[in-house]
Amino acid sequence: MSAEDEQRSGISRRRLIAGAGAAGVGIGLGGAGYLIGRDGAEAETHLDDTVPFFGARQAGIETPAQDRLHFAAFDLTVSSPDELRDLLREWTDAAAEMTRGRMVGDVNDEQLAPPDDTGETVGLQPASLTVTFGFGPDLFERDGRDRFGLRSRRPRALRPIPPLPGDTLEPGLSGGDLCVQACSDDPQVAFHAVRNLARLGRGAVVMRWSQLGFGRTSSTTRSQATPRNLMGFKDGTRNLRAEDTEDMNRFVWLGPGDDVPWMANGTYMVTRRIRMLIEIWDRSALSDQETTIGRHKYSGAPLGGAREFDDPDLGARRQSEPVIPADAHIRLAAPRMNDGESILRRGYSFTDGVVEELGELDAGLFFICFQRDPDKQFTAIQRRLGRIDALNEYIRHTSSAVFAVPPGAQPGGFIGEGLFA
Amino acid sequence: MSAEDEQRSGISRRRLIAGAGAAGVGIGLGGAGYLIGRDGAEAETHLDDTVPFFGARQAGIETPAQDRLHFAAFDLTVSSPDELRDLLREWTDAAAEMTRGRMVGDVNDEQLAPPDDTGETVGLQPASLTVTFGFGPDLFERDGRDRFGLRSRRPRALRPIPPLPGDTLEPGLSGGDLCVQACSDDPQVAFHAVRNLARLGRGAVVMRWSQLGFGRTSSTTRSQATPRNLMGFKDGTRNLRAEDTEDMNRFVWLGPGDDVPWMANGTYMVTRRIRMLIEIWDRSALSDQETTIGRHKYSGAPLGGAREFDDPDLGARRQSEPVIPADAHIRLAAPRMNDGESILRRGYSFTDGVVEELGELDAGLFFICFQRDPDKQFTAIQRRLGRIDALNEYIRHTSSAVFAVPPGAQPGGFIGEGLFA
Repeated sequence: MSAEDEQRSGISRRRLIAGAGAAGVGIGLGGAGYLIGRDGAEAETHLDDTVPFFGARQAGIETPAQDRLHFAAFDLTVSSPDELRDLLREWTDAAAEMTRGRMVGDVNDEQLAPPDDTGETVGLQPASLTVTFGFGPDLFERDGRDRFGLRSRRPRALRPIPPLPGDTLEPGLSGGDLCVQACSDDPQVAFHAVRNLARLGRGAVVMRWSQLGFGRTSSTTRSQATPRNLMGFKDGTRNLRAEDTEDMNRFVWLGPGDDVPWMANGTYMVTRRIRMLIEIWDRSALSDQETTIGRHKYSGAPLGGAREFDDPDLGARRQSEPVIPADAHIRLAAPRMNDGESILRRGYSFTDGVVEELGELDAGLFFICFQRDPDKQFTAIQRRLGRIDALNEYIRHTSSAVFAVPPGAQPGGFIGEGLFA
Repeated sequence: MSAEDEQRSGISRRRLIAGAGAAGVGIGLGGAGYLIGRDGAEAETHLDDTVPFFGARQAGIETPAQDRLHFAAFDLTVSSPDELRDLLREWTDAAAEMTRGRMVGDVNDEQLAPPDDTGETVGLQPASLTVTFGFGPDLFERDGRDRFGLRSRRPRALRPIPPLPGDTLEPGLSGGDLCVQACSDDPQVAFHAVRNLARLGRGAVVMRWSQLGFGRTSSTTRSQATPRNLMGFKDGTRNLRAEDTEDMNRFVWLGPGDDVPWMANGTYMVTRRIRMLIEIWDRSALSDQETTIGRHKYSGAPLGGAREFDDPDLGARRQSEPVIPADAHIRLAAPRMNDGESILRRGYSFTDGVVEELGELDAGLFFICFQRDPDKQFTAIQRRLGRIDALNEYIRHTSSAVFAVPPGAQPGGFIGEGLFA
């Protein structure tokens, strides 16, 4: 079977091995006499960094949040579990190679074949690329139909996010059978990962929607400074942090026996595309902005506090009024107000051009969070926020999706292996 | 007049002075007791860099191409030359402050006023931000109407780009009275510049279209390595370079007497949004890709050459066939084939989600070029390319615009002053 035949047959079975050298080392590629090296176009120290792909848990969750995101949701067009398994195997192999800074595939220098790798990252560093996979509810059942014979393996807490107060969702931008979250400090590397997985999946999946994020809006470790979102506020000050393993195990990671067995060391991802009505926000007085959020804009300190990481005093009053208003975002989102529940946020800012009818920038926050049980965590919190959060005046949720994020894979294995065990 | 009244009156006259401290220095802002500093979230050395805004020529043209782009085109909704002049003055002042890493405006800490600056870059470095302004043909005449009394000042070479072979333009994504090209190594800084100019312009302009670019596709100086575009090829190997001042004066910069007098030290910008049909491209054999471009994919060497910067041998033949085919992109774009003409390219890669009907990534090249005469340079070259370039099979031009780029401003002056002299 020639490479071209393989290409046309849909999902290729080619093993994906090294095409380009490791970071910093140019190696000869085939007989053509040219070199693929790392030419230093973006020679920042941190762009050298790689994040291991294999492990008990998938990367891209606890990993220190990289600066850039390319997220994509796919729908399956095949119908047999074997085809799904082949796809997951191939995606796993390709993701593992790309996170090491290698080209996808082993056919990249044959003149008469289409190169396996699309080539736009040749010369670039991996820049901490992580590729994280998830499974949507439809994978296990759609319209009452057990599409892949996987109904009995459905993770218990994987249910579509119900309609929530204030939703203005676009169905074409929501849901999906599978998702890929590619994060890197180089946007071209994140794009390349999604593009090449889409390409490998041709004949098995079509892309349903995708989202580029240009700036992280959360820190996931204590070593990272809190970034600002497009409202100009520090975002994620009270986020969970990877270092707090007790919290991570309580709120994010599934243990054995917590859900279906194959989801141990997995978690659930919820995504929401939140458009900010930035023109309205920008016309609001600083005090209105600060009471809406419940924090000081520049320092990030909670109202009534002095420093960013001061504990918000939800009981404080001034002239009989609460210092942090009853409808302030940080009050309503606080664990104390949500049966102690919390989530790991890992969102990104976006802008997608202009909202035509308004002549305004289409921009906001692509919210991503991880948790053990979306119903009890994201949905319960968002139900409260969607009803009375002062922030609602300034935002619209335009996309929603939920995915079961299976555990990581070991070399030789593949992501989602537990589906077929 | 209160700040809020000013805000509502459309174009504010507030002088824009320093809000935040210089790079690395946190300074107290007003009486609120908080600090605005540079908190090192993105403490890369090169993110410290600033590019001077003021000068004989505008920055963002010869400037070493930054990594990220936010481009926006605006239509004017006012009708008097005074209002246009006020807008240009205010935009100039704001751009000058932002390129120094300062906040826009002087009202950023008053509780009862909307902050002048939207705040999302507090704590970030300028990251070589440049803001470059241009004027579209409609500014001087639209539907035969002299909208601002500027018809007599129209730059001679400023004419709409005519329909070109293979055009598939979307009118809503084309043209515009004014443009802003914001480039920075930090996308949040580029976004912030466009957003804050749009905000200052409220009541005077509406945004017509905007485009985010995530990776530069050209080098503008010899110190920069040639980047790859989303076809995986090095792009811009034969670009003009800032160091070659003779070429720059011959092909890019207008001298006194070359056009209307106020355009001395100005130039013309053409933008084209070029969608790549990447799924079709990705199915092409390496040899097809290489003969389409006329270069080797990995090394960037011209066909028949060994190294990237080897001079393409357009006369070379192998078995009576030209080594660089007759319809290869680099042959048709070569100065030798275009009466010696050349252009300065300064484009960016983009992806804007999914083309819905196809389930394919909407991605490609946002082409930007600078030249002394669009008719003789971009249009003449593109007319030839659009007719017979082998690349046409893989691309679609979906947006087109042309702008006169006036000279730079001196402190106290403003961009486009010559319009009103």
